[in-house]
Amino acid sequence: MNIRLNCDMGESFGIWKMGKDEEIMPYISLANLACGFHASDAVTMSRSVELAKKYNVTIGAHPSYQDLVGFGRRSMKCTLEEIKSIVLYQIGALYSFCKLNKTTVSYVKPHGALYNDMMKDDNIYKAILSAISSFDKNIKLMILSTPNNEAYEHTARLYGISLIYEVFADRNYNDDGTLVSRVLPDAVIKDELDVMQRITNLKDRGYLESISGKKLFLKADTVCVHGDGDNALTFIKAVQKIVGS
Amino acid sequence: MNIRLNCDMGESFGIWKMGKDEEIMPYISLANLACGFHASDAVTMSRSVELAKKYNVTIGAHPSYQDLVGFGRRSMKCTLEEIKSIVLYQIGALYSFCKLNKTTVSYVKPHGALYNDMMKDDNIYKAILSAISSFDKNIKLMILSTPNNEAYEHTARLYGISLIYEVFADRNYNDDGTLVSRVLPDAVIKDELDVMQRITNLKDRGYLESISGKKLFLKADTVCVHGDGDNALTFIKAVQKIVGS
Amino acid sequence: MNIRLNCDMGESFGIWKMGKDEEIMPYISLANLACGFHASDAVTMSRSVELAKKYNVTIGAHPSYQDLVGFGRRSMKCTLEEIKSIVLYQIGALYSFCKLNKTTVSYVKPHGALYNDMMKDDNIYKAILSAISSFDKNIKLMILSTPNNEAYEHTARLYGISLIYEVFADRNYNDDGTLVSRVLPDAVIKDELDVMQRITNLKDRGYLESISGKKLFLKADTVCVHGDGDNALTFIKAVQKIVGS
Amino acid sequence: MNIRLNCDMGESFGIWKMGKDEEIMPYISLANLACGFHASDAVTMSRSVELAKKYNVTIGAHPSYQDLVGFGRRSMKCTLEEIKSIVLYQIGALYSFCKLNKTTVSYVKPHGALYNDMMKDDNIYKAILSAISSFDKNIKLMILSTPNNEAYEHTARLYGISLIYEVFADRNYNDDGTLVSRVLPDAVIKDELDVMQRITNLKDRGYLESISGKKLFLKADTVCVHGDGDNALTFIKAVQKIVGS
Repeated sequence: MNIRLNCDMGESFGIWKMGKDEEIMPYISLANLACGFHASDAVTMSRSVELAKKYNVTIGAHPSYQDLVGFGRRSMKCTLEEIKSIVLYQIGALYSFCKLNKTTVSYVKPHGALYNDMMKDDNIYKAILSAISSFDKNIKLMILSTPNNEAYEHTARLYGISLIYEVFADRNYNDDGTLVSRVLPDAVIKDELDVMQRITNLKDRGYLESISGKKLFLKADTVCVHGDGDNALTFIKAVQKIVGS
Repeated sequence: MNIRLNCDMGESFGIWKMGKDEEIMPYISLANLACGFHASDAVTMSRSVELAKKYNVTIGAHPSYQDLVGFGRRSMKCTLEEIKSIVLYQIGALYSFCKLNKTTVSYVKPHGALYNDMMKDDNIYKAILSAISSFDKNIKLMILSTPNNEAYEHTARLYGISLIYEVFADRNYNDDGTLVSRVLPDAVIKDELDVMQRITNLKDRGYLESISGKKLFLKADTVCVHGDGDNALTFIKAVQKIVGS
Repeated sequence: MNIRLNCDMGESFGIWKMGKDEEIMPYISLANLACGFHASDAVTMSRSVELAKKYNVTIGAHPSYQDLVGFGRRSMKCTLEEIKSIVLYQIGALYSFCKLNKTTVSYVKPHGALYNDMMKDDNIYKAILSAISSFDKNIKLMILSTPNNEAYEHTARLYGISLIYEVFADRNYNDDGTLVSRVLPDAVIKDELDVMQRITNLKDRGYLESISGKKLFLKADTVCVHGDGDNALTFIKAVQKIVGS
Repeated sequence: MNIRLNCDMGESFGIWKMGKDEEIMPYISLANLACGFHASDAVTMSRSVELAKKYNVTIGAHPSYQDLVGFGRRSMKCTLEEIKSIVLYQIGALYSFCKLNKTTVSYVKPHGALYNDMMKDDNIYKAILSAISSFDKNIKLMILSTPNNEAYEHTARLYGISLIYEVFADRNYNDDGTLVSRVLPDAVIKDELDVMQRITNLKDRGYLESISGKKLFLKADTVCVHGDGDNALTFIKAVQKIVGS
C-alpha cells in the first residue's frame, strides 16, 4: 500500500500565524489549503499555493462552513444549496491562485465540522460531490476511510468523482471503524512511537487496531499529520520515512 | 459606435435583497456580478450566474475591497499584494459558478472605491491587470473612459489585457473628462430625458457635453445603468432602444 | 390580560434596508433591536435606538449567533462559554447607544436559532440568563410562553431575572403548546382576520386554539408582530387596537 | 513624572493566539483590550478582562476600524457618524465584560490606523471624543503626546474628557515631535538598552531625543510596550523597574 501524507496548511489568518508551513511543506505529499472560510485570506492563499508549488506538493482545497471565529469546527444547519455553493466558492477562490502559479486544485478535503457532517449525512456528501463534479471531474474528494467504503464509493461514482481514503493514525477507532469521539479521554493517541507503530502496521499489514484490539482493515491512500505541534517537524519526518512517499 | 449596457447585478446579501435582477437582466448586455466582498454570497452568486446565463448576458466579475458593511465604497489603504490577491480570489470564486453553469467570466469591473482608486493610482491599476492576466488573458478589464485613454491602453497591453471603456451617462463630467465629484450638487443627472439625450448624442455623434458645455469625445464601449431605482426598468428599456444592443 | 406588541426592528445591514421601522415604531411597545451578529451595524443601531427613544418604545437587545449571511437562522454548535460571551457582547454594544440616547436596555430576546435552541436546551437557557444577570438584573428575558412555564420561571428566578412571556398569534401550535414546525405547511397562519381573532381570544379569554382545536391557556405578556410584510403597517395598527396598549 | 506602562492585550482571535498576556499582565498598568473589530472575539474579551482584573490592571478599550484581516492597520475613509458609532459599539461591548467582572472601562485608546487618523484629523478626534463623552465622561482618551498638546487638550475639555498622554520609547521622533514614519528605516529603535536609556531620560529629565538629537520635552503619562516579541517579558520587567509603577 502506498500511503501519502496530507497536512492542513495555509491556516494563518491576516496577522495571525499558524503552523510551520515553510518547514513542513517539503515532507508532505498533499497540502489541504484553507480557502478563507475557517482560516486563511487572499494573501495567505496566494503564498501557500506558491509554497506548495515550490515543493511539488499536490494541492487540495480545504473548504469549510463560514465561521472564522469558530475555525469551522462548529456544525451549522445549512441548506444543501448553501453547502454546494460555499464549496464551489472556495474551490474557485483557491483555483485562481493555482492559475497564478501554473498549477491546479487536485482534490477537495472538507474541513472540520463540514468533514464530520459529510460522513454522517448522505445529502451533505452528495452536495459536496455535486459541487466538485460541476467544477471539474478530475478533482478528487478525500473522505474518512471506514470498513464500509462501498456506499461512499458507489455514490461518488454516480457523480464521476474519485475518492481518496484517509486514515487518522493518531486517533483511536471504535470496533465499527468510526473514530472515538473527541469528547472521550482516549480519542487521541499522544505517544508518537505508538502512532508510528500504527502507521507501520497500516502500511505493511493493512490494518489499524481498534481501541479494543480488533483489527480494522482500512483502505489508506493517505494519513493525516498535524503541522502545529512542538515537534511536528521531527514527527512528520519520521512518518515520512515509514511511508516512503 | 456600438454601445452596450452594463449593470451591477447580484448585489443582494443573505436575506437582504437589492435590485430587480430578474426584471432587468433581459435588457442588459453585461452583468457586473458581486463576488462576496462588498455584496453577494455564495448562494446569491450561484443564482445570479444562472440568471445571466438564462438571458445570454455576458458575465463580469465585480471585485471590491473587503468591506460588506461599507458596500466597498470606502477607500482602504491596501498593499499591492493585497489588491492583486483579493481580485484573484473574487474572480476565482465567481468562475466556479460560471463552470457550474457552463459559462465563463468575460471581464472584470472593479467596484466602488477600488474602481476609483484604480483610475487614480497606476500601481493599483497594474495590480488589477496583473491579477487578471495571471488568471486568463481573455478576460477584459472595464475602466472609465477618459479623453486620455492612451496611457491606460498602453499599460493594459503590457499585461496582454484588452480594455472595455465605460461612460456614465447620468454623471456630469468636468472639462478635463473626469467625473464631477459626488460631494458636489451637480454630480448626478437626475432627469432621465436628459440622460437619454446624452446617450443618443454619445451614440450618434461620439461625445458627451461637460458641465460647462464642452464636447468630450469619449470612447464608449458600454454605458452603466442602475438597477435599483423606482423606475429602473422603464428607463433601462428606453436606453436599450437607443443603443439598440 | 395586558398584551404588548413586540417587533424585530433595526434589522437593516449597511446599505441593505429591511422593514419599515420609521412607520411601525409608533405602534409597538417593545422593539427587539439587532446587535450586529445576525443583522444591523453600529450606525444602524445608533439610529434604531434614537428612533425607539423618539416614540417611547421599550428597547430590547436581540442577540444572535454570529452569522450575518444566514441571518442567525442556522443553529450552530457553540460552547456555553461562547453563548454567554456573545450575548454579553451584544447587550453591551446596544447599551452604548442607549447611553448615547439617555435610555437603556430593558430586556433581551434571543434571535432566530438562538431563541429556538434556548427553548430546547436548558444549558443554553442558563448561559443566556447568566449573561443577563451579570450585566444587569433589571434586564428581563423574553421567552416563548408554553403551557408549562414553571420550569423556566424557576430557573430564571435562580438568576434573579424576570421573564416576559411571548405568544405568536400567526403561528399554529401543537396540542402540547409547542409551535408547529416551520417545515410543515400549516406552520404559519396567513389570514390576517384569523390572526386578529386569535389575538382577541387570547386577550379576552386567555387562550389560543391549537391546530386540533384544543384550548391552550398561555400567559401572554407580549405578542410578536412582523414589520416587513406588504401591509405590515395596516395589520399592526389593527392589532394594536385590539390589545389597546 | 509618574509614567505607567500600557500594552496592547487581548489580541488573539478565535483559535489564533497572539501575545503572552498571561505572563505580561502582572507587569503593566494599563491594558488596551481589543474589542472584536481588529482582533479579539467575545470569549477572548471575557477572558482578557478577567485576567486584567486578576492583576488589578486598569482596563482600556482599544477600538479600531472594522478590519480583522488587516488588523485595523489600513486607513479607511469612514464618515464621522460611522467613526462615532463604531467606537461606541466597541466601548459598550467591552463594558459588558467589565460588568461581568465587577470592573469598568477606564480609558479608550484607538488602535492602529484609527489612532493615526485621529492625530491627523481633528474631526475624527472629535468624533471619538463625542463617542466617549456620550458613554461616560469618566472615561479618558489616550493620545500621542506631542510638543503641542494644547490644541488637543482644549478640544478634549470641550467634550468633558481627560487625556492620557502616550510616548513611544522605541520609536524615533522627528524634530517637530511627530513619529518617524514606519516606511523609513529608522522608524523603530530595536536596541533595548537604547530604549531603556530613553525611558530613563524621559522619567528623570522629561525629554526624548529626536532623531537629530534635539531634546523633545513631552508630557508622558504612559509609555507603550509590546507584548509579542521573543523577550518581551524580560524587557517589560526591566522597563517596569525604571518607571517604578
